Amino acid sequence: MDRHRKSFLVLHGPNLNLLGSREVGIYGSLSLAELNNLLLGEAEKLGVKLDCYQSNSEGDLIDQIHDAPGKYHGIIINPGAFTHYSIALRDALAGVNIPAVEVHLSNIYAREEFRRHSVIAPVVRGQISGFGPWSYFLALRVLNDLDD
Amino acid sequence: MDRHRKSFLVLHGPNLNLLGSREVGIYGSLSLAELNNLLLGEAEKLGVKLDCYQSNSEGDLIDQIHDAPGKYHGIIINPGAFTHYSIALRDALAGVNIPAVEVHLSNIYAREEFRRHSVIAPVVRGQISGFGPWSYFLALRVLNDLDD
Amino acid sequence: MDRHRKSFLVLHGPNLNLLGSREVGIYGSLSLAELNNLLLGEAEKLGVKLDCYQSNSEGDLIDQIHDAPGKYHGIIINPGAFTHYSIALRDALAGVNIPAVEVHLSNIYAREEFRRHSVIAPVVRGQISGFGPWSYFLALRVLNDLDD
Amino acid sequence: MDRHRKSFLVLHGPNLNLLGSREVGIYGSLSLAELNNLLLGEAEKLGVKLDCYQSNSEGDLIDQIHDAPGKYHGIIINPGAFTHYSIALRDALAGVNIPAVEVHLSNIYAREEFRRHSVIAPVVRGQISGFGPWSYFLALRVLNDLDD
Amino acid sequence: MDRHRKSFLVLHGPNLNLLGSREVGIYGSLSLAELNNLLLGEAEKLGVKLDCYQSNSEGDLIDQIHDAPGKYHGIIINPGAFTHYSIALRDALAGVNIPAVEVHLSNIYAREEFRRHSVIAPVVRGQISGFGPWSYFLALRVLNDLDD
Amino acid sequence: MDRHRKSFLVLHGPNLNLLGSREVGIYGSLSLAELNNLLLGEAEKLGVKLDCYQSNSEGDLIDQIHDAPGKYHGIIINPGAFTHYSIALRDALAGVNIPAVEVHLSNIYAREEFRRHSVIAPVVRGQISGFGPWSYFLALRVLNDLDD
Amino acid sequence: MDRHRKSFLVLHGPNLNLLGSREVGIYGSLSLAELNNLLLGEAEKLGVKLDCYQSNSEGDLIDQIHDAPGKYHGIIINPGAFTHYSIALRDALAGVNIPAVEVHLSNIYAREEFRRHSVIAPVVRGQISGFGPWSYFLALRVLNDLDD
Amino acid sequence: MDRHRKSFLVLHGPNLNLLGSREVGIYGSLSLAELNNLLLGEAEKLGVKLDCYQSNSEGDLIDQIHDAPGKYHGIIINPGAFTHYSIALRDALAGVNIPAVEVHLSNIYAREEFRRHSVIAPVVRGQISGFGPWSYFLALRVLNDLDD
Amino acid sequence: MDRHRKSFLVLHGPNLNLLGSREVGIYGSLSLAELNNLLLGEAEKLGVKLDCYQSNSEGDLIDQIHDAPGKYHGIIINPGAFTHYSIALRDALAGVNIPAVEVHLSNIYAREEFRRHSVIAPVVRGQISGFGPWSYFLALRVLNDLDD
Amino acid sequence: MDRHRKSFLVLHGPNLNLLGSREVGIYGSLSLAELNNLLLGEAEKLGVKLDCYQSNSEGDLIDQIHDAPGKYHGIIINPGAFTHYSIALRDALAGVNIPAVEVHLSNIYAREEFRRHSVIAPVVRGQISGFGPWSYFLALRVLNDLDD
Amino acid sequence: MDRHRKSFLVLHGPNLNLLGSREVGIYGSLSLAELNNLLLGEAEKLGVKLDCYQSNSEGDLIDQIHDAPGKYHGIIINPGAFTHYSIALRDALAGVNIPAVEVHLSNIYAREEFRRHSVIAPVVRGQISGFGPWSYFLALRVLNDLDD
Amino acid sequence: MDRHRKSFLVLHGPNLNLLGSREVGIYGSLSLAELNNLLLGEAEKLGVKLDCYQSNSEGDLIDQIHDAPGKYHGIIINPGAFTHYSIALRDALAGVNIPAVEVHLSNIYAREEFRRHSVIAPVVRGQISGFGPWSYFLALRVLNDLDD
Repeated sequence: MDRHRKSFLVLHGPNLNLLGSREVGIYGSLSLAELNNLLLGEAEKLGVKLDCYQSNSEGDLIDQIHDAPGKYHGIIINPGAFTHYSIALRDALAGVNIPAVEVHLSNIYAREEFRRHSVIAPVVRGQISGFGPWSYFLALRVLNDLDD
Repeated sequence: MDRHRKSFLVLHGPNLNLLGSREVGIYGSLSLAELNNLLLGEAEKLGVKLDCYQSNSEGDLIDQIHDAPGKYHGIIINPGAFTHYSIALRDALAGVNIPAVEVHLSNIYAREEFRRHSVIAPVVRGQISGFGPWSYFLALRVLNDLDD
Repeated sequence: MDRHRKSFLVLHGPNLNLLGSREVGIYGSLSLAELNNLLLGEAEKLGVKLDCYQSNSEGDLIDQIHDAPGKYHGIIINPGAFTHYSIALRDALAGVNIPAVEVHLSNIYAREEFRRHSVIAPVVRGQISGFGPWSYFLALRVLNDLDD
Repeated sequence: MDRHRKSFLVLHGPNLNLLGSREVGIYGSLSLAELNNLLLGEAEKLGVKLDCYQSNSEGDLIDQIHDAPGKYHGIIINPGAFTHYSIALRDALAGVNIPAVEVHLSNIYAREEFRRHSVIAPVVRGQISGFGPWSYFLALRVLNDLDD
Repeated sequence: MDRHRKSFLVLHGPNLNLLGSREVGIYGSLSLAELNNLLLGEAEKLGVKLDCYQSNSEGDLIDQIHDAPGKYHGIIINPGAFTHYSIALRDALAGVNIPAVEVHLSNIYAREEFRRHSVIAPVVRGQISGFGPWSYFLALRVLNDLDD
Repeated sequence: MDRHRKSFLVLHGPNLNLLGSREVGIYGSLSLAELNNLLLGEAEKLGVKLDCYQSNSEGDLIDQIHDAPGKYHGIIINPGAFTHYSIALRDALAGVNIPAVEVHLSNIYAREEFRRHSVIAPVVRGQISGFGPWSYFLALRVLNDLDD
Repeated sequence: MDRHRKSFLVLHGPNLNLLGSREVGIYGSLSLAELNNLLLGEAEKLGVKLDCYQSNSEGDLIDQIHDAPGKYHGIIINPGAFTHYSIALRDALAGVNIPAVEVHLSNIYAREEFRRHSVIAPVVRGQISGFGPWSYFLALRVLNDLDD
Repeated sequence: MDRHRKSFLVLHGPNLNLLGSREVGIYGSLSLAELNNLLLGEAEKLGVKLDCYQSNSEGDLIDQIHDAPGKYHGIIINPGAFTHYSIALRDALAGVNIPAVEVHLSNIYAREEFRRHSVIAPVVRGQISGFGPWSYFLALRVLNDLDD
Repeated sequence: MDRHRKSFLVLHGPNLNLLGSREVGIYGSLSLAELNNLLLGEAEKLGVKLDCYQSNSEGDLIDQIHDAPGKYHGIIINPGAFTHYSIALRDALAGVNIPAVEVHLSNIYAREEFRRHSVIAPVVRGQISGFGPWSYFLALRVLNDLDD
Repeated sequence: MDRHRKSFLVLHGPNLNLLGSREVGIYGSLSLAELNNLLLGEAEKLGVKLDCYQSNSEGDLIDQIHDAPGKYHGIIINPGAFTHYSIALRDALAGVNIPAVEVHLSNIYAREEFRRHSVIAPVVRGQISGFGPWSYFLALRVLNDLDD
Repeated sequence: MDRHRKSFLVLHGPNLNLLGSREVGIYGSLSLAELNNLLLGEAEKLGVKLDCYQSNSEGDLIDQIHDAPGKYHGIIINPGAFTHYSIALRDALAGVNIPAVEVHLSNIYAREEFRRHSVIAPVVRGQISGFGPWSYFLALRVLNDLDD
Repeated sequence: MDRHRKSFLVLHGPNLNLLGSREVGIYGSLSLAELNNLLLGEAEKLGVKLDCYQSNSEGDLIDQIHDAPGKYHGIIINPGAFTHYSIALRDALAGVNIPAVEVHLSNIYAREEFRRHSVIAPVVRGQISGFGPWSYFLALRVLNDLDD
């Protein structure tokens, strides 16, 4: 963990690797690679380091969260479908001592009933939902500025 | 509505006039006047116009929303307790044709069960919850940058 | 209250002032002023007096209901979003001793789940839902003819 | 189907043949024959043709609905107890392409909890509840005047 | 209706014609004809007249109930599966002015969850459940002796 | 336990000692002593022995049930309010190996919602509800005649 | 029942006679007669006998099921709207001793909430849903091949 | 706020201005003015100052509560229908730092299901329900005597 | 029952004998004996007779209630944990013809979810909750003054 | 309470006196006396004192718990059916200041739905369920070893 | 993806590798290898290519689904226990643009309550449940023949 | 699998690798390595073999369970967050034929509502919850001693 530069971890949950090809009406036509590039650009502007990681495996994401303390100053997580039932992911976030922000590309509260409940939200700093890639940008900004 | 400068309306719902004196552990010690000043400062930086309005009355807030089209390019609303039951406020936001962002100072998903449900969220652009005054700043930024 | 001519009060609830501009697919393109004019025309045909009142404020509507006895022979109310949660409005209607009819422009039973329940319906004479302006016309007719 | 005169079908559901003798406090003392006569009188005034049919059998009512297109311009249906559970009746109404209006003699929203839900309402044009025989008269009027 | 001899109607609901061949473990090996014979024997002992009727059709059963007043002093009804959802049958029993007793061969409260609720029970005199043919015998006896 | 004569235990649950003075509209004006006398008369007619016991204490009733095997051929129980929540009473009845019949003076399915559910019913032979003292008489008869 | 050739009964529930004209977007444009012809063609290919029957009446369908044993080796049933509430139909299928397969033209699990629950499914051999006429073909094939 | 004499605020919620004329069977025949006079008499006996305020508007009541600190030593509130849904009123009471007591004229737990739940109760000192005007008198007494 | 002096029965439910030692943060440090003494002092001031009784047994409390008519003019009952499930206690209070008041030391509406529901409240005159010993004092006062 | 030797109280709830004769398939054939002997043997091995007590009465069990402090170092309780509804028992355990362990012979989570919820569990140290007599042995061991 | 020959992917979810050894009463004695061989035989008869894959890892199955487009013309999936909660799997199927069929060996609607709900079903073409290996064969056939 | 020495598998679910650093107030300060060492010490005392395995991946844990038969005599599993939703894990345990015991460090019944339900419990031998490392020790002991 660089003393002189903040670093953050961006975690993309299951199916986000399909971004740009999957349900474009809801998620937009940006691919995950393009989204990550935009995020890296934003990070550069803010002078912070950023690592991006996507996995379809709950276990992999939990491992990444466990490894984060000491390496990152904060986590931006889009838990995808895990948002709605993965108590294991929730416990992982609650178990490590670094701030996390939950983001969603779409407004999850304007979708199917079962998508309106997050088991993750109670253990993160805050939640940003509905602004497409901007959800991530705002999370990056708030993680960088909070607690300074 | 100024053609050359964007303008936004900030609506604070019931009891937010108590900010700084009420349940400081949850909402922080910033007063509403101070929060508004900070918001105006942010707006100035972004080169946008901002009006702030607080009311404890559902009808007043609805009237403000009805008057917004033609005057503002967007609405930032912290519906306070109305978040959880004011379908009239929801209908007002759905009935006018300008983007709105719902904000909350505290993480409403980490509080009492009845605070975890928003009847407003399905009709706004997105929701930002849990970052104190930063929730408003992020909303301002995203409203300004979206759809440009 | 005119002894020789019946008079009725039409109450329009929150957001009905947006009629004609709001969600035209659901509510039609008639403005509230036009609807009121049509209603006054119908009233004239029936030889009855009619007053129309719209408010976005629950308290205002309750005040109007409290003032109705002695002035009106009946109330036609479209409670708008208050249909679904305003027990105060319900108690106001139950508390005054004049017949009331609940009307809705759209068929509330063909819309979102939360719009299918009326807390008002159990205390009115009857409910008419789904016929656009005709919902009001029918209510006027039935109030005029009932109990003669 | 007469080109020059509109014709409508009135369907009375189960137990409505008991009208006038059954639970008079709720349904009034008018018999079904008397109600039908009144309806025919109203129809005559409006210059429309009217057929009335009562059955205690779900299948019979569905058959009548299936036969209606080409013979009638609209259906007035009091589904009686079928209101609350006959999805087959609902599907029959949704499956034929003529407007229908659901009527109830009593205000079903002021009765037992299980009577406050209609599986029929979402597929009809509108619902009129609580005005005794007037519920039917209003339905006749609105069917006749709508879409002219 | 014989002035000098009481007469009762026994109504068997859907699938009771299968008695003796259907789910013998639950309902026993007695056929419906045999059950009816036993019932007629019991009736003879008590000096009362008895008619037995079975139908798989809700409408038929309702028609029988509507015809009962003036012909019978009481009804014994085993509504079979209609017990759990036929509000139309319930309304028929509530609509005629003669006492009825609901019977069940098996103990419906010791079976599947959905069989433990009767929509019929609130409108009958009482319910007897779980004693095989004896459920009917007891109903016959109590109908005969009550209100003498 | 008499080899030559069947004997049964009648258990009256809490508040049944108030019979005749309590809520007479629901339970009738017969006192518990009078009810017991009538029951003893019925028993005598049938040539069976009968013991009656009333208690307001759940523990006492359970003790009586535990003592019943070897002394009685069956139990008639009116669990009173325990019907709705005493799983301990249920377990007692399920734990001893003699047939039991649950009786209720009033039709519990025509009363308050919370009285319509019996935790006892699933473990008894059958249930008789709604016939006043006759509920007990029928239970006595069916216990005596079953399994002969 | 032909010893040398298997025979099956196809039961179409309420409103399926409207096939081809009703909600074509969901059910396709094939008429019931055409569907039956296709099914007879498939049956011929498989060398089995097939009878098709449609009714809008619950009682009729139950009667057909009761008559099936001895005449048919299996039943293919599309219960239509009865899928969701006809416990009487369920009991009829459970009461006869021949295998049955439940079919649906549309994927009932992708439709309204109330269509996602089948009271029939627990008592049939299996369920096939969502493949249009193919749902029937597959059912025919599996009934023919199973238990050989 | 008088140093030498305690002062209290009595808040009457929506429809309480109808007292004496509305649903007299439930609320009694005392008018609001008479109730206030009785309360002022009680206050005089106790040597305390009392202000009474009624409003049908949620926003007005919230404003009164916000103004109370520094003026009053405690609040007696009968929230009327707001009891059951006004989270904004609850937040107002929780947001000011003076003790409050919730009162109800009728026993809300013996009325309709929806009246048995108070969203206000968790944030007040205590609740007194069911004693007519005495509910207020007791609240006055306990506010005056507590914490002395 | 003394003609010249009113007498009341105070019933303390289960675990109230632990008062002063149990969960002092919630219930205060006053012992049950001290509370009873304070109550007797209050009674003396009011010139009424008072008997206090505590039991951990539901049956004992029911017996006390049954014995109350003729001995006492009213009952003050703190049902403790029985508040939430003892329908037998409720029936006892409903079965005797003397006024009762339910009291709670703590504000049960500010505690665990399962403590916010009283099965007792619907059958008593009123309920007082949240004022420590003052809950009893107020109950005593209101019982003494009501119906004079 | 012996300073030199730990002593524990074993409480057996309702119907456990039937052990060995009741539902042997679930609870095993060991009688309560035999279970107690085994427990005393285990206690002797561990050098601790043990008292065993069984009651079918909620009040008795509460009294035993109230008497435990000063006499015992811990409580092992099998609440039997009280597990599922006795909030009074829960409050008793929460009200005394000694550790308790809840045990069950059978695995309550593999039985009827209503047996899967314990109102006791939240106030004890831990719960051991499903190991027959071994559930008690483990509880004894853990009470003895914990907090040493 | 072969232009001249269709190819399909068969996905077996968690625990299906235990087939033949696990709960044989429910799933049959066929091993997964044997099932796959049968499936390959069926595929050969139909002239299509087939790949079979089993995994106990949600992430692996999602990866397989993501890789399917371009390689396969359709997916047959038995989601095993994931059927009931894996929204991530659902999103994966919804996110790729090839038809899928959900299959189950056992009739999931005749098993435990929690197995009767599929979160997968709303996003697949159809569902086949209850026919053992035949469920797969039918799925293969329908995938091959549909949309030709 | 050693014939002469029993061997057991200890499975630690997601986030248990954080033991000692995560939410120490709930889980204690012992690390997973230290816990495993203690367990190995206990095993040595009992003369049994023990393997310990931790994974954050549901699939890995399922694989371990599938491999257990033939290698181990029993499984001790702390499913962590999977306790509450992993039906796949449940099916794995139900699918292999060796006894398993579910353990929890904390008393899951004294924590958040969603942690009080275990989908695993119905398929294991028993559950031990709330005793810290002792939960594992007790499980080891009971697995070793049962069925000898």
